Amino acid sequence: MDTIQASSGESNLREVLRSNECEPQCEPTQFRNYSHSEIILENLQSLRKNEVLCDTGFETKDGTLVLGHKNVLIAASPYFRAMFDNFDESNKDLVNIRELDSMVLKILVDYIYTGEFIVTKENAQVLLSSANILQLDFVSAACAEFLQKQLDASNCLGIRAFADLHNCTDLLSSSETFIKKQFLEVVKN
Amino acid sequence: MDTIQASSGESNLREVLRSNECEPQCEPTQFRNYSHSEIILENLQSLRKNEVLCDTGFETKDGTLVLGHKNVLIAASPYFRAMFDNFDESNKDLVNIRELDSMVLKILVDYIYTGEFIVTKENAQVLLSSANILQLDFVSAACAEFLQKQLDASNCLGIRAFADLHNCTDLLSSSETFIKKQFLEVVKN
Repeated sequence: MDTIQASSGESNLREVLRSNECEPQCEPTQFRNYSHSEIILENLQSLRKNEVLCDTGFETKDGTLVLGHKNVLIAASPYFRAMFDNFDESNKDLVNIRELDSMVLKILVDYIYTGEFIVTKENAQVLLSSANILQLDFVSAACAEFLQKQLDASNCLGIRAFADLHNCTDLLSSSETFIKKQFLEVVKN
Repeated sequence: MDTIQASSGESNLREVLRSNECEPQCEPTQFRNYSHSEIILENLQSLRKNEVLCDTGFETKDGTLVLGHKNVLIAASPYFRAMFDNFDESNKDLVNIRELDSMVLKILVDYIYTGEFIVTKENAQVLLSSANILQLDFVSAACAEFLQKQLDASNCLGIRAFADLHNCTDLLSSSETFIKKQFLEVVKN
């Protein structure tokens, strides 16, 4: 067993504060490290990048392997929680992800370890649908917000259908409002 | 293998956005979830409390067992990083912590999972010395700040000796300044 030993030589000092009457300034004080959770997550991402203590991996059809820590993935995604709860022993360490491309998978796992991601015209829809699967609600909402800003007469019908398919109520509502307002322009397209 | 499948029926929509000229509002957009790291840490604490995926434990001399996740402990403390790097296979899952009492151990592990802790007149010194061992700098600094506020003629010599023993340079400096200013009062005590 490894052992943590407190440094010696302080037992004679330990009573120093107890011997006094308590002044108002020595009331129990709560401290909070406001950057703590960010530092922990940054360090967990660093562990992942260095493949330290990774206990699961996702393999896409193009053979890409994305490693991670089950506890972090579970902490971010109810989908992963359900997945790892239902794993049997024989296949607990590798998940085969069909239909998700490596790029999207990397973006979503990186989001789990950083809280950040970039939405582009190219990835907005596939990112939203994949985030819906993993129940990463912030990503889904951000992609919907991005798509809402793209609405124009040429794409509003497609975006409306997409929003309907993926149960994006705000985006569905926005696209329907847009279609009504720009009806003549939409018909021309 | 478990499988994630993207929902079907969207391939015909995927080109919707690509077919347009890019307007200024469809530039790649970075999103950041500012509460993400806090949520992850809260959920990791919840996993710990429910003993989910805990892969290590600390046992104190009074028989108390405090469970945790190695990756989170390593992400918070360079001391734990060194400890787990040096573990051999036979004893990797249990650490016997001598000299640290259960109360302090619980406070420090809870801090690692929450970023919060309470300093009292009773725990300030033992918490500081234990946080120094685990290299939890924020906790050490907070305890030193708390002790600095307690300085009076009756305890300043004890606090100075404690600060010297634990290399708390700010606290050492404050207590020495206090002693010089209140010299006559200190001598009376």
